[in-house]
Amino acid sequence: MSIVLKSSCLLVTLIFLYLTYLLLGALVFSAIERPVEESLKTELNSLKAELLNNLTCINATILENFLVRVLRANKYGVSVLHNISTNSNWDLASSLFFANTLVTTVGYGHTTPLSDAGKAFSIVYALLGIPFTMLVLTTCVQHLIQPLTYRPMRLWQQWAGWPLRTASTVHFLILILIVMLVFFVVPAVVFSRIEESWTFLEAFYFCFISLCTIGLGDFVPGERPNQQLRPLYKVSVMVGRCAWLDNILPPAHL
Amino acid sequence: MSIVLKSSCLLVTLIFLYLTYLLLGALVFSAIERPVEESLKTELNSLKAELLNNLTCINATILENFLVRVLRANKYGVSVLHNISTNSNWDLASSLFFANTLVTTVGYGHTTPLSDAGKAFSIVYALLGIPFTMLVLTTCVQHLIQPLTYRPMRLWQQWAGWPLRTASTVHFLILILIVMLVFFVVPAVVFSRIEESWTFLEAFYFCFISLCTIGLGDFVPGERPNQQLRPLYKVSVMVGRCAWLDNILPPAHL
Repeated sequence: MSIVLKSSCLLVTLIFLYLTYLLLGALVFSAIERPVEESLKTELNSLKAELLNNLTCINATILENFLVRVLRANKYGVSVLHNISTNSNWDLASSLFFANTLVTTVGYGHTTPLSDAGKAFSIVYALLGIPFTMLVLTTCVQHLIQPLTYRPMRLWQQWAGWPLRTASTVHFLILILIVMLVFFVVPAVVFSRIEESWTFLEAFYFCFISLCTIGLGDFVPGERPNQQLRPLYKVSVMVGRCAWLDNILPPAHL
Repeated sequence: MSIVLKSSCLLVTLIFLYLTYLLLGALVFSAIERPVEESLKTELNSLKAELLNNLTCINATILENFLVRVLRANKYGVSVLHNISTNSNWDLASSLFFANTLVTTVGYGHTTPLSDAGKAFSIVYALLGIPFTMLVLTTCVQHLIQPLTYRPMRLWQQWAGWPLRTASTVHFLILILIVMLVFFVVPAVVFSRIEESWTFLEAFYFCFISLCTIGLGDFVPGERPNQQLRPLYKVSVMVGRCAWLDNILPPAHL
Protein backbone atom coordinates (compact mmCIF):
# COMPACT_ATOMS: atom_id res chain seq x y z
CA MET A 1 0.00 0.00 0.00
CA SER A 2 1.43 3.43 -0.92
CA ILE A 3 2.21 5.98 1.80
CA VAL A 4 -0.48 8.38 0.49
CA LEU A 5 -3.15 5.67 0.58
CA LYS A 6 -2.04 4.52 4.04
CA SER A 7 -2.18 8.04 5.37
CA SER A 8 -5.64 8.62 3.79
CA CYS A 9 -6.91 5.40 5.42
CA LEU A 10 -5.54 6.61 8.76
CA LEU A 11 -7.30 9.95 8.33
CA VAL A 12 -10.66 8.31 7.47
CA THR A 13 -10.33 5.93 10.45
CA LEU A 14 -9.48 8.81 12.78
CA ILE A 15 -12.45 10.90 11.57
CA PHE A 16 -14.75 7.88 11.96
CA LEU A 17 -13.47 7.26 15.51
CA TYR A 18 -13.85 10.95 16.32
CA LEU A 19 -17.46 11.00 15.10
CA THR A 20 -18.13 7.86 17.15
CA TYR A 21 -16.59 9.55 20.20
CA LEU A 22 -18.84 12.60 19.71
CA LEU A 23 -21.91 10.41 19.22
CA LEU A 24 -21.16 8.29 22.29
CA GLY A 25 -20.59 11.44 24.34
CA ALA A 26 -23.90 12.87 23.10
CA LEU A 27 -25.74 9.65 24.05
CA VAL A 28 -24.25 9.64 27.56
CA PHE A 29 -24.96 13.35 28.11
CA SER A 30 -28.51 12.89 26.86
CA ALA A 31 -29.07 9.84 29.09
CA ILE A 32 -27.69 11.58 32.19
CA GLU A 33 -29.10 15.07 31.73
CA ARG A 34 -32.49 14.66 30.07
CA PRO A 35 -34.31 13.20 33.11
CA VAL A 36 -32.82 15.92 35.37
CA GLU A 37 -33.88 18.58 32.88
CA GLU A 38 -37.41 17.15 32.71
CA SER A 39 -37.77 17.17 36.50
CA LEU A 40 -36.46 20.75 36.71
CA LYS A 41 -38.91 21.80 34.00
CA THR A 42 -41.84 20.17 35.84
CA GLU A 43 -40.80 21.84 39.11
CA LEU A 44 -40.50 25.22 37.39
CA ASN A 45 -43.87 24.90 35.65
CA SER A 46 -45.66 23.98 38.88
CA LEU A 47 -43.97 26.91 40.65
CA LYS A 48 -45.21 29.23 37.89
CA ALA A 49 -48.73 27.79 38.06
CA GLU A 50 -48.71 28.22 41.85
CA LEU A 51 -47.65 31.84 41.46
CA LEU A 52 -50.42 32.53 38.94
CA ASN A 53 -53.06 30.88 41.15
CA ASN A 54 -52.04 32.87 44.23
CA LEU A 55 -51.56 36.31 42.77
CA THR A 56 -53.62 38.04 45.46
CA CYS A 57 -51.32 36.89 48.25
CA ILE A 58 -48.07 37.57 46.45
CA ASN A 59 -45.58 40.03 47.84
CA ALA A 60 -42.05 41.10 46.95
CA THR A 61 -40.47 38.20 48.87
CA ILE A 62 -42.52 35.52 47.12
CA LEU A 63 -41.77 37.07 43.71
CA GLU A 64 -38.06 37.32 44.61
CA ASN A 65 -37.95 33.65 45.64
CA PHE A 66 -39.71 32.66 42.42
CA LEU A 67 -37.24 34.69 40.37
CA VAL A 68 -34.28 33.11 42.20
CA ARG A 69 -35.55 29.66 41.10
CA VAL A 70 -36.25 30.88 37.56
CA LEU A 71 -32.76 32.34 37.16
CA ARG A 72 -31.06 29.31 38.73
CA ALA A 73 -32.84 26.98 36.28
CA ASN A 74 -32.00 29.36 33.43
CA LYS A 75 -28.30 29.12 34.32
CA TYR A 76 -28.50 25.45 33.33
CA GLY A 77 -30.38 26.24 30.12
CA VAL A 78 -33.85 25.39 31.48
CA SER A 79 -36.28 28.17 30.64
CA VAL A 80 -39.51 28.99 32.46
CA LEU A 81 -41.02 30.44 29.28
CA HIS A 82 -43.89 28.52 27.77
CA ASN A 83 -42.65 28.94 24.20
CA ILE A 84 -39.11 27.77 24.81
CA SER A 85 -39.71 24.97 27.29
CA THR A 86 -40.82 22.61 24.51
CA ASN A 87 -37.24 22.45 23.12
CA SER A 88 -34.99 20.10 25.04
CA ASN A 89 -31.35 21.02 25.58
CA TRP A 90 -30.44 17.37 25.86
CA ASP A 91 -31.98 15.73 22.78
CA LEU A 92 -29.44 13.94 20.58
CA ALA A 93 -28.62 16.90 18.30
CA SER A 94 -28.25 19.36 21.20
CA SER A 95 -26.14 16.88 23.19
CA LEU A 96 -23.92 16.37 20.13
CA PHE A 97 -23.61 20.15 19.83
CA PHE A 98 -22.69 20.37 23.53
CA ALA A 99 -20.15 17.51 23.28
CA ASN A 100 -18.53 19.27 20.32
CA THR A 101 -18.34 22.61 22.15
CA LEU A 102 -16.60 20.80 25.04
CA VAL A 103 -13.88 19.10 22.98
CA THR A 104 -13.23 22.18 20.81
CA THR A 105 -13.08 24.31 24.04
CA VAL A 106 -15.72 26.72 22.68
CA GLY A 107 -18.08 26.11 25.64
CA TYR A 108 -21.00 28.47 24.98
CA GLY A 109 -22.49 27.68 28.37
CA HIS A 110 -26.10 28.29 27.27
CA THR A 111 -26.59 24.67 28.32
CA THR A 112 -24.56 23.18 31.14
CA PRO A 113 -24.74 19.86 33.00
CA LEU A 114 -27.31 19.91 35.79
CA SER A 115 -26.26 16.78 37.64
CA ASP A 116 -23.03 15.87 39.44
CA ALA A 117 -22.72 12.83 37.15
CA GLY A 118 -22.94 15.16 34.12
CA LYS A 119 -20.26 17.46 35.56
CA ALA A 120 -17.91 14.54 36.33
CA PHE A 121 -18.51 13.08 32.87
CA SER A 122 -17.77 16.49 31.29
CA ILE A 123 -14.34 16.50 32.98
CA VAL A 124 -13.43 12.98 31.79
CA TYR A 125 -14.93 13.55 28.33
CA ALA A 126 -13.02 16.81 27.75
CA LEU A 127 -9.81 15.36 29.23
CA LEU A 128 -9.77 12.70 26.52
CA GLY A 129 -11.66 14.65 23.86
CA ILE A 130 -9.50 17.78 23.68
CA PRO A 131 -6.22 15.95 22.82
CA PHE A 132 -8.23 13.67 20.48
CA THR A 133 -9.61 16.74 18.68
CA MET A 134 -6.07 18.15 18.41
CA LEU A 135 -4.85 14.84 16.94
CA VAL A 136 -7.66 14.74 14.35
CA LEU A 137 -7.09 18.39 13.43
CA THR A 138 -3.32 17.93 13.08
CA THR A 139 -3.83 14.89 10.83
CA CYS A 140 -6.33 16.84 8.70
CA VAL A 141 -3.89 19.76 8.48
CA GLN A 142 -1.14 17.45 7.24
CA HIS A 143 -3.47 16.43 4.41
CA LEU A 144 -4.67 19.93 3.65
CA ILE A 145 -1.34 21.74 3.69
CA GLN A 146 -0.30 20.28 0.32
CA PRO A 147 -3.43 21.21 -1.74
CA LEU A 148 -4.12 24.43 0.16
CA THR A 149 -0.68 25.99 0.48
CA TYR A 150 2.30 24.34 -1.26
CA ARG A 151 0.55 23.38 -4.55
CA PRO A 152 -1.14 26.78 -5.20
CA MET A 153 2.11 28.56 -4.32
CA ARG A 154 4.04 26.42 -6.81
CA LEU A 155 1.39 27.17 -9.43
CA TRP A 156 1.70 30.91 -8.78
CA GLN A 157 5.45 30.65 -9.20
CA GLN A 158 5.19 28.63 -12.44
CA TRP A 159 2.36 30.57 -14.10
CA ALA A 160 3.22 34.12 -13.06
CA GLY A 161 6.97 33.60 -12.71
CA TRP A 162 6.90 35.27 -9.26
CA PRO A 163 9.62 34.68 -6.67
CA LEU A 164 8.66 32.52 -3.66
CA ARG A 165 8.19 35.52 -1.33
CA THR A 166 5.73 37.31 -3.67
CA ALA A 167 3.86 34.07 -4.40
CA SER A 168 3.50 33.27 -0.70
CA THR A 169 2.33 36.82 0.16
CA VAL A 170 -0.28 36.84 -2.63
CA HIS A 171 -1.39 33.35 -1.68
CA PHE A 172 -1.67 34.33 1.99
CA LEU A 173 -3.79 37.39 1.14
CA ILE A 174 -6.10 35.34 -1.10
CA LEU A 175 -6.48 32.73 1.65
CA ILE A 176 -7.33 35.42 4.22
CA LEU A 177 -9.97 36.82 1.85
CA ILE A 178 -11.50 33.39 1.22
CA VAL A 179 -11.48 32.57 4.95
CA MET A 180 -13.12 35.92 5.79
CA LEU A 181 -15.83 35.30 3.20
CA VAL A 182 -16.46 31.60 3.87
CA PHE A 183 -16.29 31.64 7.67
CA PHE A 184 -17.39 35.15 8.63
CA VAL A 185 -19.25 37.18 6.02
CA VAL A 186 -21.38 34.46 4.37
CA PRO A 187 -22.31 32.72 7.68
CA ALA A 188 -23.09 36.13 9.23
CA VAL A 189 -25.49 36.88 6.34
CA VAL A 190 -27.06 33.41 6.67
CA PHE A 191 -27.44 33.64 10.46
CA SER A 192 -28.91 37.14 10.30
CA ARG A 193 -31.54 35.75 7.90
CA ILE A 194 -32.33 32.54 9.82
CA GLU A 195 -32.18 33.98 13.34
CA GLU A 196 -34.82 36.70 13.09
CA SER A 197 -33.64 38.73 16.08
CA TRP A 198 -29.95 38.83 15.06
CA THR A 199 -28.51 41.83 13.23
CA PHE A 200 -25.56 41.39 10.83
CA LEU A 201 -23.15 42.72 13.49
CA GLU A 202 -24.52 40.27 16.07
CA ALA A 203 -24.22 37.36 13.62
CA PHE A 204 -20.65 38.40 12.70
CA TYR A 205 -19.85 38.76 16.43
CA PHE A 206 -21.26 35.25 17.02
CA CYS A 207 -19.03 33.81 14.23
CA PHE A 208 -15.95 35.57 15.57
CA ILE A 209 -16.54 34.67 19.24
CA SER A 210 -17.25 31.02 18.28
CA LEU A 211 -14.38 30.55 15.86
CA CYS A 212 -11.85 32.01 18.31
CA THR A 213 -13.20 29.37 20.76
CA ILE A 214 -14.16 32.13 23.23
CA GLY A 215 -17.82 31.04 23.09
CA LEU A 216 -19.62 33.59 25.25
CA GLY A 217 -22.99 32.00 24.59
CA ASP A 218 -25.02 35.22 24.35
CA PHE A 219 -25.88 34.23 20.78
CA VAL A 220 -26.43 30.54 20.05
CA PRO A 221 -28.10 29.37 16.82
CA GLY A 222 -31.15 27.13 16.80
CA GLU A 223 -32.50 28.27 20.18
CA ARG A 224 -35.65 29.96 18.86
CA PRO A 225 -38.93 28.25 19.80
CA ASN A 226 -40.19 25.98 17.00
CA GLN A 227 -36.94 26.31 15.03
CA GLN A 228 -37.38 24.48 11.72
CA LEU A 229 -35.05 21.52 11.13
CA ARG A 230 -33.37 22.23 14.49
CA PRO A 231 -31.23 19.03 14.68
CA LEU A 232 -29.92 19.50 11.11
CA TYR A 233 -29.24 23.19 11.78
CA LYS A 234 -27.34 22.44 15.03
CA VAL A 235 -25.23 19.74 13.36
CA SER A 236 -24.48 22.05 10.38
CA VAL A 237 -23.18 24.77 12.72
CA MET A 238 -21.03 22.12 14.44
CA VAL A 239 -19.59 20.88 11.12
CA GLY A 240 -18.87 24.48 10.05
CA ARG A 241 -16.96 25.09 13.30
CA CYS A 242 -14.86 21.95 12.78
CA ALA A 243 -14.17 22.91 9.15
CA TRP A 244 -12.91 26.30 10.35
CA LEU A 245 -10.53 24.70 12.83
CA ASP A 246 -9.24 22.43 10.07
CA ASN A 247 -8.79 25.22 7.55
CA ILE A 248 -7.35 27.92 9.73
CA LEU A 249 -4.31 25.82 10.64
CA PRO A 250 -2.61 25.45 7.20
CA PRO A 251 -2.00 29.23 6.78
CA ALA A 252 -0.62 29.27 10.33
CA HIS A 253 1.99 26.72 9.18
CA LEU A 254 3.34 29.07 6.52
CA MET B 1 24.24 43.70 27.91
CA SER B 2 24.24 39.88 28.22
CA ILE B 3 21.69 37.81 26.28
CA VAL B 4 20.02 36.61 29.52
CA LEU B 5 19.60 40.17 30.80
CA LYS B 6 18.34 41.35 27.40
CA SER B 7 15.81 38.55 27.24
CA SER B 8 14.66 39.23 30.84
CA CYS B 9 14.18 42.92 29.98
CA LEU B 10 12.13 41.90 26.95
CA LEU B 11 9.97 39.64 29.10
CA VAL B 12 9.35 42.35 31.72
CA THR B 13 8.51 44.88 28.97
CA LEU B 14 6.12 42.41 27.31
CA ILE B 15 4.36 41.63 30.61
CA PHE B 16 4.08 45.35 31.37
CA LEU B 17 2.62 46.02 27.89
CA TYR B 18 0.23 43.08 28.31
CA LEU B 19 -1.03 44.36 31.68
CA THR B 20 -1.47 47.81 30.12
CA TYR B 21 -3.44 46.23 27.26
CA LEU B 22 -5.71 44.42 29.74
CA LEU B 23 -6.19 47.58 31.81
CA LEU B 24 -6.98 49.71 28.76
CA GLY B 25 -9.44 47.07 27.55
CA ALA B 26 -11.09 47.01 30.97
CA LEU B 27 -11.41 50.81 30.98
CA VAL B 28 -12.98 50.85 27.51
CA PHE B 29 -15.39 47.99 28.31
CA SER B 30 -16.36 49.67 31.57
CA ALA B 31 -16.91 53.03 29.84
CA ILE B 32 -19.04 51.49 27.06
CA GLU B 33 -21.02 48.93 29.03
CA ARG B 34 -21.64 50.44 32.46
CA PRO B 35 -24.17 53.09 31.35
CA VAL B 36 -26.06 50.48 29.25
CA GLU B 37 -26.09 48.11 32.22
CA GLU B 38 -27.37 50.86 34.53
CA SER B 39 -30.22 51.72 32.17
CA LEU B 40 -31.17 48.03 31.80
CA LYS B 41 -31.15 47.65 35.58
CA THR B 42 -33.39 50.69 36.02
CA GLU B 43 -35.79 49.40 33.36
CA LEU B 44 -35.89 45.98 34.98
CA ASN B 45 -36.47 47.36 38.46
CA SER B 46 -39.35 49.55 37.30
CA LEU B 47 -40.88 46.57 35.47
CA LYS B 48 -40.66 44.54 38.67
CA ALA B 49 -42.18 47.36 40.74
CA GLU B 50 -44.99 47.72 38.19
CA LEU B 51 -45.69 43.98 38.41
CA LEU B 52 -45.82 44.09 42.22
CA ASN B 53 -48.16 47.12 42.20
CA ASN B 54 -50.56 45.52 39.72
CA LEU B 55 -50.75 42.00 41.07
CA THR B 56 -54.54 41.89 40.97
CA CYS B 57 -54.67 42.42 37.21
CA ILE B 58 -51.85 40.06 36.34
CA ASN B 59 -52.44 37.10 34.13
CA ALA B 60 -50.28 34.45 32.48
CA THR B 61 -49.46 36.70 29.50
CA ILE B 62 -48.25 39.61 31.63
CA LEU B 63 -46.13 37.27 33.75
CA GLU B 64 -44.73 35.63 30.59
CA ASN B 65 -43.80 39.02 29.11
CA PHE B 66 -42.14 40.03 32.37
CA LEU B 67 -40.17 36.79 32.46
CA VAL B 68 -39.06 37.26 28.82
CA ARG B 69 -37.54 40.64 29.80
CA VAL B 70 -36.00 39.18 32.98
CA LEU B 71 -34.34 36.33 31.08
CA ARG B 72 -33.15 38.55 28.25
CA ALA B 73 -31.46 40.90 30.73
CA ASN B 74 -30.04 37.91 32.58
CA LYS B 75 -28.42 36.71 29.34
CA TYR B 76 -26.26 39.84 29.47
CA GLY B 77 -25.48 39.33 33.14
CA VAL B 78 -28.03 41.84 34.45
CA SER B 79 -30.04 40.27 37.26
CA VAL B 80 -33.50 41.29 38.41
CA LEU B 81 -32.79 40.05 41.93
CA HIS B 82 -32.55 42.70 44.62
CA ASN B 83 -29.53 41.08 46.29
CA ILE B 84 -27.43 40.72 43.19
CA SER B 85 -28.31 43.91 41.37
CA THR B 86 -26.00 45.96 43.62
CA ASN B 87 -22.91 44.30 42.04
CA SER B 88 -21.92 45.78 38.71
CA ASN B 89 -20.61 43.49 35.99
CA TRP B 90 -18.70 46.38 34.46
CA ASP B 91 -16.75 47.90 37.35
CA LEU B 92 -12.99 47.98 36.78
CA ALA B 93 -12.20 44.57 38.34
CA SER B 94 -15.05 42.80 36.54
CA SER B 95 -14.15 44.46 33.23
CA LEU B 96 -10.55 43.37 33.72
CA PHE B 97 -11.77 39.84 34.41
CA PHE B 98 -13.92 39.95 31.26
CA ALA B 99 -11.05 41.33 29.12
CA ASN B 100 -8.82 38.53 30.38
CA THR B 101 -11.43 35.84 29.62
CA LEU B 102 -11.65 37.23 26.05
CA VAL B 103 -7.93 37.17 25.27
CA THR B 104 -7.36 33.77 26.91
CA THR B 105 -10.44 32.44 24.96
CA VAL B 106 -12.06 31.19 28.20
CA GLY B 107 -15.20 33.31 27.69
CA TYR B 108 -17.46 32.35 30.61
CA GLY B 109 -20.33 34.34 29.16
CA HIS B 110 -21.91 35.14 32.55
CA THR B 111 -21.35 38.73 31.47
CA THR B 112 -21.51 39.72 27.81
CA PRO B 113 -21.46 43.08 26.03
CA LEU B 114 -24.89 44.69 25.90
CA SER B 115 -24.24 47.33 23.28
CA ASP B 116 -23.24 47.08 19.63
CA ALA B 117 -20.17 49.19 20.41
CA GLY B 118 -19.18 46.67 23.10
CA LYS B 119 -19.64 43.75 20.68
CA ALA B 120 -17.57 45.47 17.95
CA PHE B 121 -14.87 46.37 20.48
CA SER B 122 -14.81 42.73 21.71
CA ILE B 123 -14.01 41.56 18.16
CA VAL B 124 -11.16 44.04 17.68
CA TYR B 125 -9.86 43.53 21.23
CA ALA B 126 -9.77 39.72 20.92
CA LEU B 127 -8.33 39.89 17.39
CA LEU B 128 -5.27 41.72 18.73
CA GLY B 129 -5.36 40.31 22.26
CA ILE B 130 -5.32 36.57 21.49
CA PRO B 131 -2.06 36.64 19.45
CA PHE B 132 -0.59 39.06 22.03
CA THR B 133 -1.46 36.59 24.83
CA MET B 134 0.16 33.78 22.83
CA LEU B 135 3.29 35.89 22.36
CA VAL B 136 3.53 36.71 26.09
CA LEU B 137 2.92 33.07 27.03
CA THR B 138 5.52 31.78 24.57
CA THR B 139 8.10 34.25 25.89
CA CYS B 140 7.30 33.22 29.47
CA VAL B 141 7.60 29.55 28.49
CA GLN B 142 11.06 30.17 27.00
CA HIS B 143 12.13 31.54 30.39
CA LEU B 144 10.46 28.81 32.42
CA ILE B 145 11.55 25.81 30.41
CA GLN B 146 15.13 25.99 31.75
CA PRO B 147 14.37 26.15 35.52
CA LEU B 148 11.26 23.94 35.31
CA THR B 149 12.35 21.15 32.98
CA TYR B 150 15.97 21.00 31.80
CA ARG B 151 17.64 21.97 35.10
CA PRO B 152 15.67 19.57 37.39
CA MET B 153 16.17 16.76 34.85
CA ARG B 154 19.94 17.34 34.82
CA LEU B 155 19.90 17.34 38.63
CA TRP B 156 18.01 14.00 38.66
CA GLN B 157 20.58 12.55 36.30
CA GLN B 158 23.55 13.83 38.35
CA TRP B 159 22.23 12.99 41.84
CA ALA B 160 20.47 9.70 41.20
CA GLY B 161 22.61 8.60 38.27
CA TRP B 162 19.47 7.85 36.22
CA PRO B 163 19.48 7.69 32.42
CA LEU B 164 17.76 10.59 30.60
CA ARG B 165 14.58 8.58 29.89
CA THR B 166 14.01 7.62 33.55
CA ALA B 167 14.85 11.13 34.76
CA SER B 168 12.41 12.70 32.28
CA THR B 169 9.61 10.23 33.19
CA VAL B 170 10.04 10.81 36.94
CA HIS B 171 10.25 14.55 36.40
CA PHE B 172 7.12 14.51 34.24
CA LEU B 173 5.16 12.55 36.88
CA ILE B 174 6.28 14.94 39.63
CA LEU B 175 5.28 17.93 37.49
CA ILE B 176 1.85 16.40 36.82
CA LEU B 177 1.37 15.85 40.57
CA ILE B 178 2.40 19.42 41.41
CA VAL B 179 0.18 20.85 38.65
CA MET B 180 -2.79 18.76 39.86
CA LEU B 181 -2.29 19.98 43.42
CA VAL B 182 -1.52 23.65 42.69
CA PHE B 183 -4.07 24.25 39.93
CA PHE B 184 -6.89 21.82 40.69
CA VAL B 185 -7.01 20.33 44.19
CA VAL B 186 -5.92 23.34 46.29
CA PRO B 187 -8.01 25.90 44.32
CA ALA B 188 -11.01 23.52 44.45
CA VAL B 189 -10.70 23.35 48.26
CA VAL B 190 -10.33 27.15 48.46
CA PHE B 191 -13.29 27.82 46.13
CA SER B 192 -15.55 25.34 47.94
CA ARG B 193 -14.78 27.25 51.17
CA ILE B 194 -15.18 30.79 49.77
CA GLU B 195 -18.17 30.11 47.50
CA GLU B 196 -20.70 28.80 50.03
CA SER B 197 -22.96 27.06 47.54
CA TRP B 198 -20.17 25.17 45.69
CA THR B 199 -19.35 21.57 46.53
CA PHE B 200 -15.79 20.24 46.06
CA LEU B 201 -16.83 18.53 42.81
CA GLU B 202 -18.36 21.77 41.49
CA ALA B 203 -15.22 23.74 42.43
CA PHE B 204 -12.99 21.11 40.78
CA TYR B 205 -15.28 21.16 37.71
CA PHE B 206 -14.97 24.97 37.60
CA CYS B 207 -11.14 24.75 37.72
CA PHE B 208 -11.06 22.13 34.97
CA ILE B 209 -13.56 23.87 32.67
CA SER B 210 -11.73 27.22 33.14
CA LEU B 211 -8.20 25.94 32.73
CA CYS B 212 -9.08 24.02 29.55
CA THR B 213 -10.43 27.40 28.28
CA ILE B 214 -13.88 25.83 27.76
CA GLY B 215 -15.42 28.34 30.21
CA LEU B 216 -19.06 27.29 30.43
CA GLY B 217 -19.85 30.03 32.95
CA ASP B 218 -22.23 28.00 35.13
CA PHE B 219 -19.81 28.58 38.01
CA VAL B 220 -18.03 31.93 38.20
CA PRO B 221 -16.25 33.07 41.36
CA GLY B 222 -17.02 36.35 43.06
CA GLU B 223 -20.63 36.57 41.89
CA ARG B 224 -22.25 36.20 45.33
CA PRO B 225 -24.06 39.30 46.61
CA ASN B 226 -21.86 41.30 49.01
CA GLN B 227 -18.77 39.25 48.17
CA GLN B 228 -15.97 40.43 50.43
CA LEU B 229 -12.92 41.93 48.66
CA ARG B 230 -14.59 41.21 45.29
CA PRO B 231 -12.11 43.14 43.06
CA LEU B 232 -9.09 41.48 44.73
CA TYR B 233 -10.76 38.06 44.48
CA LYS B 234 -11.59 38.53 40.78
CA VAL B 235 -8.05 39.69 39.95
CA SER B 236 -6.55 36.76 41.93
CA VAL B 237 -8.60 34.24 39.92
CA MET B 238 -7.42 35.98 36.73
CA VAL B 239 -3.76 35.82 37.79
CA GLY B 240 -4.14 32.13 38.72
CA ARG B 241 -5.56 31.38 35.26
CA CYS B 242 -2.63 33.16 33.55
CA ALA B 243 -0.13 31.33 35.79
CA TRP B 244 -1.70 28.02 34.71
CA LEU B 245 -1.37 28.87 31.02
CA ASP B 246 2.27 29.80 31.63
CA ASN B 247 3.07 26.67 33.59
CA ILE B 248 1.21 24.06 31.58
CA LEU B 249 3.25 24.78 28.45
CA PRO B 250 6.76 23.73 29.60
CA PRO B 251 5.76 20.05 30.21
CA ALA B 252 4.09 20.08 26.78
CA HIS B 253 7.49 20.96 25.31
CA LEU B 254 9.09 17.79 26.70
